[in-house]
Amino acid sequence: MKKIAVLTSGGDAPGMNAAIRAVVRKGIYEDLDVFGVYNGYQGLIEGKIERLDAGSVGDIIQKGGTMLHSSRCPEFKTPEGRAEGVRQLRERGIEGLIVIGGDGSYRGAQALSEAGFPCVGVPGTIDNDINGTDYTLGFDTALNTVIDAIDKIRDTATSHERTFIIEVMGRDAGDLALWAGVAGGAESILIPERPHDIDEIVTRLKQGTERGKKHSILIVAEGVMSGQDLAVKLKETAGIETRVSVLGHIQRGGSPTGRDRVLASKFGARAVEVLLEGRAGVAVGMRNHAVIDYPLTEVFSRREGMEDGLYELSKELSI
Amino acid sequence: MKKIAVLTSGGDAPGMNAAIRAVVRKGIYEDLDVFGVYNGYQGLIEGKIERLDAGSVGDIIQKGGTMLHSSRCPEFKTPEGRAEGVRQLRERGIEGLIVIGGDGSYRGAQALSEAGFPCVGVPGTIDNDINGTDYTLGFDTALNTVIDAIDKIRDTATSHERTFIIEVMGRDAGDLALWAGVAGGAESILIPERPHDIDEIVTRLKQGTERGKKHSILIVAEGVMSGQDLAVKLKETAGIETRVSVLGHIQRGGSPTGRDRVLASKFGARAVEVLLEGRAGVAVGMRNHAVIDYPLTEVFSRREGMEDGLYELSKELSI
Amino acid sequence: MKKIAVLTSGGDAPGMNAAIRAVVRKGIYEDLDVFGVYNGYQGLIEGKIERLDAGSVGDIIQKGGTMLHSSRCPEFKTPEGRAEGVRQLRERGIEGLIVIGGDGSYRGAQALSEAGFPCVGVPGTIDNDINGTDYTLGFDTALNTVIDAIDKIRDTATSHERTFIIEVMGRDAGDLALWAGVAGGAESILIPERPHDIDEIVTRLKQGTERGKKHSILIVAEGVMSGQDLAVKLKETAGIETRVSVLGHIQRGGSPTGRDRVLASKFGARAVEVLLEGRAGVAVGMRNHAVIDYPLTEVFSRREGMEDGLYELSKELSI
Amino acid sequence: MKKIAVLTSGGDAPGMNAAIRAVVRKGIYEDLDVFGVYNGYQGLIEGKIERLDAGSVGDIIQKGGTMLHSSRCPEFKTPEGRAEGVRQLRERGIEGLIVIGGDGSYRGAQALSEAGFPCVGVPGTIDNDINGTDYTLGFDTALNTVIDAIDKIRDTATSHERTFIIEVMGRDAGDLALWAGVAGGAESILIPERPHDIDEIVTRLKQGTERGKKHSILIVAEGVMSGQDLAVKLKETAGIETRVSVLGHIQRGGSPTGRDRVLASKFGARAVEVLLEGRAGVAVGMRNHAVIDYPLTEVFSRREGMEDGLYELSKELSI
Repeated sequence: MKKIAVLTSGGDAPGMNAAIRAVVRKGIYEDLDVFGVYNGYQGLIEGKIERLDAGSVGDIIQKGGTMLHSSRCPEFKTPEGRAEGVRQLRERGIEGLIVIGGDGSYRGAQALSEAGFPCVGVPGTIDNDINGTDYTLGFDTALNTVIDAIDKIRDTATSHERTFIIEVMGRDAGDLALWAGVAGGAESILIPERPHDIDEIVTRLKQGTERGKKHSILIVAEGVMSGQDLAVKLKETAGIETRVSVLGHIQRGGSPTGRDRVLASKFGARAVEVLLEGRAGVAVGMRNHAVIDYPLTEVFSRREGMEDGLYELSKELSI
Repeated sequence: MKKIAVLTSGGDAPGMNAAIRAVVRKGIYEDLDVFGVYNGYQGLIEGKIERLDAGSVGDIIQKGGTMLHSSRCPEFKTPEGRAEGVRQLRERGIEGLIVIGGDGSYRGAQALSEAGFPCVGVPGTIDNDINGTDYTLGFDTALNTVIDAIDKIRDTATSHERTFIIEVMGRDAGDLALWAGVAGGAESILIPERPHDIDEIVTRLKQGTERGKKHSILIVAEGVMSGQDLAVKLKETAGIETRVSVLGHIQRGGSPTGRDRVLASKFGARAVEVLLEGRAGVAVGMRNHAVIDYPLTEVFSRREGMEDGLYELSKELSI
Repeated sequence: MKKIAVLTSGGDAPGMNAAIRAVVRKGIYEDLDVFGVYNGYQGLIEGKIERLDAGSVGDIIQKGGTMLHSSRCPEFKTPEGRAEGVRQLRERGIEGLIVIGGDGSYRGAQALSEAGFPCVGVPGTIDNDINGTDYTLGFDTALNTVIDAIDKIRDTATSHERTFIIEVMGRDAGDLALWAGVAGGAESILIPERPHDIDEIVTRLKQGTERGKKHSILIVAEGVMSGQDLAVKLKETAGIETRVSVLGHIQRGGSPTGRDRVLASKFGARAVEVLLEGRAGVAVGMRNHAVIDYPLTEVFSRREGMEDGLYELSKELSI
Repeated sequence: MKKIAVLTSGGDAPGMNAAIRAVVRKGIYEDLDVFGVYNGYQGLIEGKIERLDAGSVGDIIQKGGTMLHSSRCPEFKTPEGRAEGVRQLRERGIEGLIVIGGDGSYRGAQALSEAGFPCVGVPGTIDNDINGTDYTLGFDTALNTVIDAIDKIRDTATSHERTFIIEVMGRDAGDLALWAGVAGGAESILIPERPHDIDEIVTRLKQGTERGKKHSILIVAEGVMSGQDLAVKLKETAGIETRVSVLGHIQRGGSPTGRDRVLASKFGARAVEVLLEGRAGVAVGMRNHAVIDYPLTEVFSRREGMEDGLYELSKELSI
């Protein structure tokens, strides 16, 4: 293998640039030519492919977003679209592709691999919801963005505005809400993986007030309901006034944390090695404190669920 | 004058603690006993008053919120409430009061001064909407909180999600939205002081897209409309998809910036001097780069309006 | 067991407060009385011990430092000192002690446990140098503090001042320097665990300049040499002008990151469980992505050394 | 005037990019062609001049450093060097030049203006030491960088390490040290504009310790002495152990604060207007809360000295 390519796909995540840098630099270290595909699978079909040298990825390790841009691409879900993508790669002599993105992006990588073009996936999504890896790129950064918001809310405590709701990202996965809730000392955390009970939340709020708490903070993952809807429910159920913050895409941005950068460096370098080992249809990941690789097909099976015991711990510590 | 007191009132703002510290330390430097009133005017009526020494205000200069807490107090709007407040102060031999807060809080200070109890106001509100001073405590910090959010949004640029709305605080005053919009390079800024035109916003968005802009950011002050309402309007008017962030009370928190701390130090110290000069019913402020004081009555007249030319500059630079 | 105590010892680290909070809240959840010992082992001998309730640890999860303060205590290295410490605890009916600190602090916990008073260690040090756990409290926060410094240095690039040295903490352990160097994209990283070669560093610097690098950043752990000494060597060896930053104790402060807070919450809670299980002389830790506990004696054996491959990766990616 | 150029010179400062953006965008708004000169006066002589469009300065408002790079250029101090610079500009039809930098950079602008080529200066330096303007670009950002360091130091308080020294930039000007010291609540501040007395510092430190202060922080501007030298003096004079942090070039980096970005936007736009008004040899600045312009010659007269009363206030509040 002499030429490989890298693309980012789906929602962007902090650390993607650091992973691109690692792919390019490790590739060059291994005497490969490395190409960047711009605009994800859409750009692949359109042939937006350029050679990257060591300098192309200078001064990007600290940047949020992705220098290769990203997109959604319905066309790539068709065999014709994928065939065109492969053609574009082969035309340039490229023999392997590294795809940085979430599980949606992995499906394209799997389809290409099945069609005989070797792909390796690198997990990049703030949701931390990719099966088979303990962490995904961007999760750690998003976590710190959310707790920064919680910390600021915590500062502001006036008697009439004592209950705050922060809506965070997470349609199907509550990791971000849960970790941020524990790290921020939130009174209640609502995540998709666990049932919620408005009455219990109200009870906890009232108990807190009785014990002299100046303010209470509720974290709700968007997959459960919107912050605004939760505010209405608390008002209707128990007359509790709340203030709502909706962080939105702020959670996707920001300079990656140290951990996301180190993780990205390891993932990117390992992905190159996996291609050089002649393997395909695998994803790299972090499991039990070690960089691993495993079949992409594992990703598409049902997610193993929440980290053991953290939700319960959040209840015990937020008394 | 041998004994003075300080309280914070209304919505809290970063820098209030630094101002309390300055009042206490300057007071001690001037051989005064300084008392803290907890919980604003409500606590004043209830006699929640304690003597503060130099150590009481150690390690608070960097903290958001207010160590004296704050509250709203309808009772203080009655002559009876105010009389009780004065009684509580006089009972302890306190002869002057420094009130840190917004213009609502200043009304109480004015009423007390008129009733013969000397008060001095220190402007503390993130809205920067107090007549007669160029800056209020907390504005600079809130500005940086908002631009941090804008910067993060800017990082995340995928082809399907290119227009972002950030709703910021400001019911009647657009300073925060305007400054943050200029500092963040926002494409459009909606503030209460100026009419807005959805069609013009749409035109600007489309021009930006045509010129190759990857993303556009709109800042809307809550006093104009909610971010969600703006999203609906853009969708209905022109089919433009947006993503909304609602910062909410995050803007009130955070460790104060250097400027807010220096301003707070100057304001607090000057307020003590004003009391010692035997004056009452005045506010301290910053005008033309100098610390000044002026009658509280000036505050209640109509606001002078937006800073000259900044709105127009925002249009010129966001092409 | 009905009463337990917690203390912090040695150099402080971000996350210690979050661990204290977890110990107290988990203890209360388990129907224990929890006491805080102020000023480390010194305070233990002096009987500076107070009962903590759920509110005592409110609003501390986000704070750097340790609310229980810390100290060094030569007296506790004597049997008499330790006997007095145990007496103070038993006098209050306290039956178990949780010690948050580094390996020096663990020696006291081990000695007490051997003397029949059950102790559990929680690893708190920014150096990440405690044998048997993959992470210590504070490391993640310090890592992000250092890379924030690197990122700022990276911004400033003028033609005459292109080589920067950043001296970071780490007398015997290079984890902080190594992780920060990888995450910051440093050109060279000097750590105690690996030999360094000034000539090789010079060669790398010159190669970088030839390839058009605008600036180079060297990270040196204080255990190798001071930043100033490295500057002198580069000047004398090759006439290279550098600018030096010495971060010093800045690295020990700051609000803990999300990860440090979650880790602290888990560690603190687990330490309480270990005491309740009737065990002693053990430390909690994180190994292979799981919270574990293991004999304190393991800590005092030789450290296992650097994380596998990260140093080599740093060389490959900094080309 | 149809074509103008902009360059940055001397030490870089946060906000320079925002000023470049404002010059380019305002120029385009005024139907000018705007050129960027790369590498300061050196690049001017070498003809490193390129046309910039609105997109060239997209997404730079938030970035530290300067996209035009900077340099020192001894050659430009000669009439021949300057003549060549003017020739390069005139060859491209450029009729006016905006120079962003410190007072050293202004000398080149003044020389060119005297030689008949209109130049306007924009004050960019973290030192805040340019005569005639209350603020320079980068000062506000550097201030917040320093207080972030102070805040972190403040977190870490163990009994044996209670006195910290932070060395900050400022060879001739103490503004940064003074503002940061006030904002950070430093116990003593050493600046070039005022004499210092080691004995008085020692006395203050001892008084603080006696009153129960857990830690003391000293800020020293590099122009007074190095942090290391101060540490040695305190040790020799009074046996006081200290820990030293040397921030170095960290102070020059970082994303500019909101205020620096707004200031940069106003300065850049005003500089274009001044050129269009047919004026030359002037600098823009901020005085008494208004954007002004004034002859460059004013800059080279003796500096007016420290802001009134802030040094004295620092003493009063740090008791």
